[in-house]
This record gives sequence, C-alpha cells and structure tokens, in this order.
Amino acid sequence: MSQNPQGPVSNKIELIRFCLFGSGRMGVEYARIIAEHPDAELVGIINPNLASATVLSDQYGGKPFRSLTECLESSEIDAAIVCSPTNTHLEIIVQLAQAGIAIFCEKPIDLNMARVDQCIETVQHYKVPFFVGFNRRFDPSNAALRTRVSNGDVGQLNMVLLTSRDPAPPPLDYIKRSGGYFCDSTIHDIDLACWLTGETPVEVFTSASCLVDAQIGAAGDVDTAMTILKMPSGVLCHINNSRKAVYGFDQRVEVFGSAGMLQTQNQRDLLLSHSSAAATDAQPPLKHFFLERYEQSFALEMSDFINGLKTGSAPSVGYLDGRRALEIALACDVSRREGRVVRL
Amino acid sequence: MSQNPQGPVSNKIELIRFCLFGSGRMGVEYARIIAEHPDAELVGIINPNLASATVLSDQYGGKPFRSLTECLESSEIDAAIVCSPTNTHLEIIVQLAQAGIAIFCEKPIDLNMARVDQCIETVQHYKVPFFVGFNRRFDPSNAALRTRVSNGDVGQLNMVLLTSRDPAPPPLDYIKRSGGYFCDSTIHDIDLACWLTGETPVEVFTSASCLVDAQIGAAGDVDTAMTILKMPSGVLCHINNSRKAVYGFDQRVEVFGSAGMLQTQNQRDLLLSHSSAAATDAQPPLKHFFLERYEQSFALEMSDFINGLKTGSAPSVGYLDGRRALEIALACDVSRREGRVVRL
Amino acid sequence: MSQNPQGPVSNKIELIRFCLFGSGRMGVEYARIIAEHPDAELVGIINPNLASATVLSDQYGGKPFRSLTECLESSEIDAAIVCSPTNTHLEIIVQLAQAGIAIFCEKPIDLNMARVDQCIETVQHYKVPFFVGFNRRFDPSNAALRTRVSNGDVGQLNMVLLTSRDPAPPPLDYIKRSGGYFCDSTIHDIDLACWLTGETPVEVFTSASCLVDAQIGAAGDVDTAMTILKMPSGVLCHINNSRKAVYGFDQRVEVFGSAGMLQTQNQRDLLLSHSSAAATDAQPPLKHFFLERYEQSFALEMSDFINGLKTGSAPSVGYLDGRRALEIALACDVSRREGRVVRL
Amino acid sequence: MSQNPQGPVSNKIELIRFCLFGSGRMGVEYARIIAEHPDAELVGIINPNLASATVLSDQYGGKPFRSLTECLESSEIDAAIVCSPTNTHLEIIVQLAQAGIAIFCEKPIDLNMARVDQCIETVQHYKVPFFVGFNRRFDPSNAALRTRVSNGDVGQLNMVLLTSRDPAPPPLDYIKRSGGYFCDSTIHDIDLACWLTGETPVEVFTSASCLVDAQIGAAGDVDTAMTILKMPSGVLCHINNSRKAVYGFDQRVEVFGSAGMLQTQNQRDLLLSHSSAAATDAQPPLKHFFLERYEQSFALEMSDFINGLKTGSAPSVGYLDGRRALEIALACDVSRREGRVVRL
Repeated sequence: MSQNPQGPVSNKIELIRFCLFGSGRMGVEYARIIAEHPDAELVGIINPNLASATVLSDQYGGKPFRSLTECLESSEIDAAIVCSPTNTHLEIIVQLAQAGIAIFCEKPIDLNMARVDQCIETVQHYKVPFFVGFNRRFDPSNAALRTRVSNGDVGQLNMVLLTSRDPAPPPLDYIKRSGGYFCDSTIHDIDLACWLTGETPVEVFTSASCLVDAQIGAAGDVDTAMTILKMPSGVLCHINNSRKAVYGFDQRVEVFGSAGMLQTQNQRDLLLSHSSAAATDAQPPLKHFFLERYEQSFALEMSDFINGLKTGSAPSVGYLDGRRALEIALACDVSRREGRVVRL
Repeated sequence: MSQNPQGPVSNKIELIRFCLFGSGRMGVEYARIIAEHPDAELVGIINPNLASATVLSDQYGGKPFRSLTECLESSEIDAAIVCSPTNTHLEIIVQLAQAGIAIFCEKPIDLNMARVDQCIETVQHYKVPFFVGFNRRFDPSNAALRTRVSNGDVGQLNMVLLTSRDPAPPPLDYIKRSGGYFCDSTIHDIDLACWLTGETPVEVFTSASCLVDAQIGAAGDVDTAMTILKMPSGVLCHINNSRKAVYGFDQRVEVFGSAGMLQTQNQRDLLLSHSSAAATDAQPPLKHFFLERYEQSFALEMSDFINGLKTGSAPSVGYLDGRRALEIALACDVSRREGRVVRL
Repeated sequence: MSQNPQGPVSNKIELIRFCLFGSGRMGVEYARIIAEHPDAELVGIINPNLASATVLSDQYGGKPFRSLTECLESSEIDAAIVCSPTNTHLEIIVQLAQAGIAIFCEKPIDLNMARVDQCIETVQHYKVPFFVGFNRRFDPSNAALRTRVSNGDVGQLNMVLLTSRDPAPPPLDYIKRSGGYFCDSTIHDIDLACWLTGETPVEVFTSASCLVDAQIGAAGDVDTAMTILKMPSGVLCHINNSRKAVYGFDQRVEVFGSAGMLQTQNQRDLLLSHSSAAATDAQPPLKHFFLERYEQSFALEMSDFINGLKTGSAPSVGYLDGRRALEIALACDVSRREGRVVRL
Repeated sequence: MSQNPQGPVSNKIELIRFCLFGSGRMGVEYARIIAEHPDAELVGIINPNLASATVLSDQYGGKPFRSLTECLESSEIDAAIVCSPTNTHLEIIVQLAQAGIAIFCEKPIDLNMARVDQCIETVQHYKVPFFVGFNRRFDPSNAALRTRVSNGDVGQLNMVLLTSRDPAPPPLDYIKRSGGYFCDSTIHDIDLACWLTGETPVEVFTSASCLVDAQIGAAGDVDTAMTILKMPSGVLCHINNSRKAVYGFDQRVEVFGSAGMLQTQNQRDLLLSHSSAAATDAQPPLKHFFLERYEQSFALEMSDFINGLKTGSAPSVGYLDGRRALEIALACDVSRREGRVVRL
C-alpha cells in the first residue's frame, strides 16, 4: 500500500470534494473510483440508512451522514454523485442545485417526463454543472468507434445496430421498481444511438415479448425487445435486448455507412481458444457483467466529469441528454404496449 | 474435357428432361447447373427473343425455342425452370401446369397477391410439383444453422437477426421493374426468417430510407431498410438491408435463444490476413456477389428439386412458401410507405 | 448434363491429349480434373493392372492401356500425368521424354538423389516440359500471400512459419513405403518455404519424435517433427508437422517481415459459430483432408500446366524444384536421425 | 483519492515491509504495485544513486537509501525486490540472504552459470524464500492455458509453439549490456516452455540472424531467432523471436496434443474492426509493450509472492527455475554461435 498515493507533494492539486448519495451496488463502484482518483476526495456518504453509509465509508473513506445538511455542516462539498434509488433523484438534485454543488446523476434522472422538465428549470436557474451517467460512451472501443465515425471512416452514416443482452435477469423485485425494461436498460442503447448519429429520432417502434421468464411478463414488463429508431436524416438504428444470454454479457455496436462499417467485439476475460474433435476456436464464455465489463468506462466517465469541473467546461453528457433518452425510452414502452409507431 | 461426363453406362439413370424459360443472368446460371447435373438434361431454352436463347443453347446445350408449344413439338419435357421476367411467370406457370410439367420458379412468383392466389388453384388442380427458388435455405452454413436450431442447440428461439447488404445497387432500370426493394431483395430474408423460426409473422414493421442513391428514391423505391417481424410465439426477427456495402456482399445470420446463439460468417474468397503498422488482421474485402456467393446453394437447391422429382416427394420449398414471403414483403412496403405496423 | 459441355463450336480450340499413369487416389483426382478441363482430353489411362485403369476410364473417359507403347499405338499423346507409385516414376519419365511427351509428375520425383540427378539429364536432353506437382503453391490464399510478399506488403522477409498437420495418420503399409515423413509430407512445406522466400536453405535442422502411434516409430519413421531452414539471406523458416490433429487438417502459413505479417487461416467447410454457456465462438472442426482442402489447388495447378503447354512457356514448377525439395527432405531425415545440423 | 485505501481497520492485516533495489523502468513498476497492494508496504528504495531513489519514493512512498545497511538502520524489512542492473544481483542476493530477507529477483539472476551455482548455496543455507520474476506465467490467459493442459484438454502434449516479438529493438546501449538476446528475452519463452511441459529439454538448437538492425549484429548479438527444444518425453517446443514487429508486441502461445490445441491470442487495446473497400476486419495495431501488456501479470505475480510469504508456502517460481532458464538460454547462444545442437 502507498503511504502517499496521490504522488509527490509538488504535483498536488486542489482536490474536488465529493459527497455520494446511495451506498448500493453503484455507490460502492463510485466510492472506489473517487477513492482512487488523484484529483478527488470522498468527503461524505449520505444515506438515511446510516449503517449502510458507514460500511462504505469504512472501506473507501469519507464520513457517513444521514442527509446533505448534516454533511455540509461538517465540510464543504464541490460535487455530488447521485446513485440513490431513482425516485429520490429529483429531490436530491434540487437540494444540490440550491447548494451550488455540481451534480453527477445516475441514469435515469427520473421516470416521469413532467417532473424531469420541471427539475431542469431549477438546475438551469442555479447554473450547476449536471452530468448524466451514460458510461458506455466512455468505453474505449465505443469512444474510438465514434471518433472514427467523426473522422469519416464509414462515410455518410446509414445504419447503427446495437446488441445489448444481459447474462441473466435481475431479481423480480428489482424489475418491479426499475421503471420497465426500456427505462432501465434500453435507455443506454438509446443514448448510444443518439450520440453516435448526433441525432434525435423522429419515429420509434418497439416490438417486445416475454420469453425469458413468465414472472417478468406477469409483472407487466418484457424481457426480449427489438427497437427501430428513425433519425431525421433517414439513418436507421436497430436495438435488440434480452434479459438473458447464457454465454454472457453481450455488448456489440455496429455502424454502417457509405464508406464502410465499424464493429466492436465483446470484451473477453481470457484470450484463449480451444480446438478439439468436437469444435475449433471454442472460447470461454463472456464472464463479466456490467461492473467488470464497463469498469474502465465508469472510471473514464468520472475523470471526464472531474476534469470538466477543473477546467470549467460544460459536462460532456448533460441534463438534456438524460431527458432525451428518457423520452425515447418511454416512447419505446408506449410503442410496444400499443403496438404502434410513436412519433416524437 | 470428358468424353463421357455423366459417368459409366452401368450407372446411367433416366434423365430428367428440362426446359428453361428465360436466358438472362439467372438463365445462364440454371443452364450451367442443369448441364453439369448427372441426372438432368437441358432439352430446350425458351425465349420469344430466339437469338438470346440461341446464345445460351450454344454454350450449354438444349435447343432454342420461341414457346413451350414449339418445344413440346420437338421433345417431351419433365420439368421447367421459370426465370423469365417476373410479369411473365404466371402465364407460363399455367401453361406448364396444364401440360403436367413440374415447375421450378424463381422468386417472386408474381407481385400481385390476387393473381398469385388465383394461380395456385390451377397449380393445385393439375397437381404438378412446384418449387420456389429460395436458394439461401440451401447454403450449407444456413442449412447447418437450421439443423442445429432443430437439434435444440440454442434452446427455445428468442430472436433472429438477418443482415443482407449488396455490394452495389443494380441499374436504375432494373430497380424500376423489380417490384420494389422488399419484393426483390428482402423477400429472401423474409423466407429465411419464416423457415428458421417455423412461423409466419403476425405483425410487420419496416422503416426505410433512400441514402445510397437519390435516383432510387426518385423512382419511388428505398435502398436502406430495417424490418421487425413478430412471430405468434413472440420470437422477434430483425432484417437490415442496404443496396450498397463498399466492403462487399454482406450476408450474416444470427439466431439467439435460451441456450445460446448461432451465427454465420461471411464467406471469403481468400483466407488471408495482413498485419502492418496501420492495422492488424486486415482481410481482403468480400469480392463475390450472389451468383458466386450462393453458387453452392443454387446447385444444391436444384439437386433437391431433381431429387424430389425422382423420389416423388413434395418440393421442400413450395408455392405457399412463395406466397407467404410475397405477402410479407408487400406488407413491409405498406408499412414503410404508411409509417405503421401491418398486422397479417 | 451437358450435351455440349466444352462450349460453342466457334470457341473450340485444339485439345491437349493426355494419358495418365496410375489409377489410385491421385489418379482419380487428375482424371476428373482432365475430364472437366475445357482444353484437355483424357485419351488413355495406363496401368499394368488393366482392371484398375478400366474402372477409371469407365467413369472419366479415355481408354485403358497396359503400357505407354500400347497407348501410343492407339492415339497420339501430348502430355502425361505420372501418379503411379513413386518407385516407377523415373522409368516412366524416361519413356515419356524419349517419346517427346510433356510430363506432369507427382511429388516426389523419386527417393534417390543419384537417380534423380541421372534422370534430369534425359529430361533436359529431350527438352520435354516437366512439371512437378507441388499443388499448394496454387492454393488461392497461398498464391495471394506470395503475391503480396512480392509486392512488399511485409517488407524485407524475416521469418516463414508453416504448420502442416494431418487429421490422422495413413495406414502403416503406406507409411512403410512412403519414403519417410519428410519425403512424403514435409516436402510440401519445404517447397513452400523455398518458393515463398525465393531461396534455397544453407542449413537444415530437424527434431522429431514418435508421439502419435508407436507402430510408426517401430517402422523407423516419426510422426511429430519440427524443422528450421536457414536461408542464405538469414531468413529463418519453421515447419511443424504432425500425423494427427484431432480437430482436422491444419494448414497455416505465416510470413513475417520488416513491414508486417501475412497469415493464412484454415479453410472451413461451414461458416458457423456457436455460443453457449460452455463456450463462445465454437466452430465446427476442419473436416476435409487434402483432396477436398486443396481441390481448387489441384485444378488450378493443372490449368497452369496446360496453359504453359499451349503458350509454350516454361513450367512454373520444374524438375529442379522437385530435386531441391527432395534434397532438403532427405537432409531433414539425416538431421533428425543423427541429431545434427546438415549443411547443404 | 482514498483517505483509507487499505480498507476498514477491522480487516487490517500485518503488512509485508518491502525494500526495492533499483529505480529504473522495472523499479517504477514494482513500486507502484507494492504501493497499491493491500498487504504490502514500501519502506525503502535503495540505489547508490540516491537522487534516482528519491524520485521514486516521492511518487510511491518509502524512503530513499544508498544501501541495505542504511535501510535496515531505519526499519525492519520482510522482503526485497531486486531489479537493479543484472550484474549487481548476486551481491545483493547474498546480503539479503544473510539478513534473512525474502527475495523477489528479476530475471536473469545473473549471466554466469558458475556464479549462479555458487550463490544458490548461500540462498539455501539461509533458507530465505526466493522468487524469480517470470511474470508471463501469471498472465491470466497463459495461466488458464496451463490449467487446461493439466486438465487434459489437449490430451498428451506433442508440441508447444511460442511467438514472442517486440514492437521495436531497445537502445543499442541496452543491448550491449543485456547479456544477449537469449538471456534477455528468449529466457521468458524458455521458462514458459519448461513450465507448460513440466520438463527440462535434453537438446537445444537455435538458428539466428541479424535482420532488423545491422548495429545489433555489429555488437555481436542477433535480432531474429528460432529455437527448438526437445524434451525427454519427445515433446517438441518451437520459439520464434524478433526484436521488431511493426504491428506491435506479438505474444502468442500454442499448445498441441493428442486431444486438441489451445491457443492464446494477442491482447488488444481496442476491440474495434473496420471494413472498407480496401479491407475487412482491419483492427488497430497492438499498441502496448510489455509493461502494459503484462500489467496484470506483474501484479498477480507479486500477489503470489506476497501470499506465499503470508502463508509460508514455497515460492511458485524458485531459484532453480531461474537457473534452468539461464542454462538453456546460454545453450541457445552457444548453439547459434557454433551452428550445432547443444545437449544438456
């Protein structure tokens, strides 16, 4: 272990002081990332359930608090990470905005468009930086793909195809409070499609089924879905989602245009192939789920947020990006429920 | 060259006597396949433009005729291949059915559902074998994929994804009389989707654009399309089509289910990769278009037809398969024109 | 079947009249290739065992003869294919050379260097074209690889690595009269190494074992071998051979130089991969052995020979190529037996 | 940054106190690994050139010292990492052994077999744990490959093939004091070959050239080499090395046996392929050199060393492993200089 992990004193810069709302799976991830970041300091972990906050602060530093008010009594805060349950986001965002604290908010911002639109006024009024956690933009292969699209390596864009399949469905409890498959999961692909094309769809169509687990259907949700987004330029985007791919977390992007195609491949834990009398080139299944698969993305995303705060540049993924993805995700849900095209 | 190409006399079997309607690109292909087939004999090539038939008969044997009547005056005929222009198919089919000749018909049978439904009565009345040329079912990799699906290697089917992109658009003249992108090209993918799932869709949605060549749009057609077919079981099928992929003829099938995934890869002319300071594993583009890419499929398909005639078994791709694919292709066109889901 | 398979009369060219020595596995292959070639005619099949020749002539045409003399009494002959047992090659070659007939000879020409050197004088005296059957040069991927090497795509050559592993050992009887692993099998890789580098090695080292079948060792041969050839320029070539790869016929070429690397991949029967909970990207084993794997090569090689005869150009693989590969194969055997480097 | 990076107090374990000899490229790597390791503490950095040690200690903690004696006056030490210049290793090892400090030594231990054999007596006398830094055994894909070999997934081993090519040669100065290509670089592959087969070769042959940079040859060294190791069981191992692969650091392992083959692929920075009119599946070059490519291996190796110290188990890579690899590397050099097989 390091006695001085942030490097020589002469290189010391002023640290961004962070508080963290939420101490669940994503809270652990963000606490670790902040603890390891040379330019950031984890000051407070805020959870009305103080015991949960304490476990996390024991491991990654910072003090546990029941509320932002308590936290601010103890220390000044520059920035906050909001990864508490979705239905608490907006209230916390308002508090943070009023306190002038920069906000990093997990997706989705909220599940209700009217509330989201109301909240944006507060955020804009207080002029706090607001960053939405669409980490997949920061995956190095996705980022390189987009750079190459910008460089014209596929010419004029014609199609985007996104495959996003989980290794296994989450617990039914989670599904019931997730806001539905589209706001919970497809929203990532929707953001990627908009980001890669630089466009917002004019038309959304989703067809979906419950083929993985009948209990998901009984809960009113779906587990298998295909979506088409049509962009104003005519570019077509396909998204396919499944809650269960037995061979592992399947995450592929394909972009097709007048000058060619770019494709990302699945990230592998082991680079090993086996050839036998039964099969050749058999490779191990894709073991990792999103925290491991997108480990680099989460860290790079936070660096981007921190760097923006240090340089004063606008967040690279803003409130309106979060609003747009939510609006499209909700349209997917309407489309699959009503069996019709939704125009935006 | 062989002096006795069909093998030793002792192995001689009775040859199926063929006539061929049409002497265009597909006519040349079928003439060659029949000429090389050990159990078939090319007796006549029928084209009102006798000069065109003569060029083909000079190369592959058989005599040129202006009409079926003329041909039948000269020889008995067991089977006919119909690859004349689409708008001539039905009239020829009726003649052949009345003459009791087995029919192999290029897709689409016709572009008009009412006419197709009327014709089927004639075909059924005369009880002639009728085979529709969906050759892609006979591609060895596609056929092996379906066998593995039947064997349960992907468990319960959830999704089918079909990518079908041409290297370059056909001449505008061809496009204008092709019946539109869906009846001309997507129809192959539609047949594959139905064949792989063993189902007929209940719901069709297509979104399409003209991104490759504005002249195609001016002609009322599209060149870039995405389709979703929803099957009664809830299985979802995606099809994406483009008239122009600069890296070559892109033909991929992916099938996803509860126990895994099967994927076909593009067929390559050369198995050669190059690693340099600029890139690694760079492989040559996919050079071949459909006649080369599906060369094996065309030959295997015709063998299947001939074998069916010899054994008296029903054609493996029948009139109703052709009717179904046409109906869905027409629904795709309605869907993209009217911007709505079409229920079948 | 074709009534006129060689094309229209107006395109008729004078056919090269062939006789074929040998009616074993390779005899069948060459008979078929000649029967299908538009510029060649199979006139005679020569085998002292007339019954064997008759079986082949029944299938592919030509008449059966007991000897060249008998054959020449019946017809003029332009060219001969020699694929009788290796120990009969030289005697046949001398007869053919004296009769002024162009010679296509299977590898190896003979197993005895002194006899090979003596025979070359006869061949040169009678100035007959002489082609040695190193068909792997004509494999489209190998040929493309060499063209790219010539084009400078790997810069200055540094290394060649050749993997050549059979799916299963031949019968022990065959092994006993094969001339040993190096003259029977490695000789192909040796020829490739010389052809790809444009050089003849100055130094040969081979290490070998009997790991596949102890009976092969008991017969004085080996089944697992590694060879290093050092070229005058310093280029190093590695060859690895095994008599048994359970996943199929493994044939790979890698060329490494100052500007990069070129690699060929194994040819696959099916382009299909399977992903399951056990493995991803599992592909079918490599089913085909050499007659199927190198089917194209055999046909292209014969076309090259025939084309050379028609244009009067020198054979692209000549007697000295066959002599060189034999000399190196014999040196490999000395090296592995005596455990020492052999200098050429 | 973390205020408490090693985790909650209740989980605190006694830290292994480390000193580090050397502050060059590998010194930086090991200092970082120790600084980040939860069970280790970097106490001292020892370099007669104190300024160099100070730079490192400023960044990763620990105090700079001129000698072990000075360091021990300041603190107790449990373990030492020796990555000073090779010619200083043995003297340091003796000091550490006498002080009862566990030793982690970079390869090679020394370049002189007699000195290595003398030193081992001291190490054994003082019974200090001794670990040799063959990090490539700890690469996850290599480790998984060996586990699968042990599990019988390739059956009885027949061949091992190792490709190890650097992106560019080191500075000429480094080459001159490196001990030659085989002790500097091939030694890693030699260790892998022995480790994968569980055997020590009876016979070594190396052929080598200077094809990358004539200055390397002028310095008496080579830059392109191929080696065959023959194991007592008859298993054959091939190693190919180049000082310059323009497409990047090429590190591949292939193991072939009676039941199949295992292969590792090169690790990629980006999982992105590009298809254009010029090429398909073109992927970015392999950017990383050994510190990045084997980053995980270095960390896992050190964890293994630390874990061994904590549990009292014998080092998984011991002095005799280092001695063996050196002996074989020296035999490679003799073989290539004298152009003969070397028997061990």
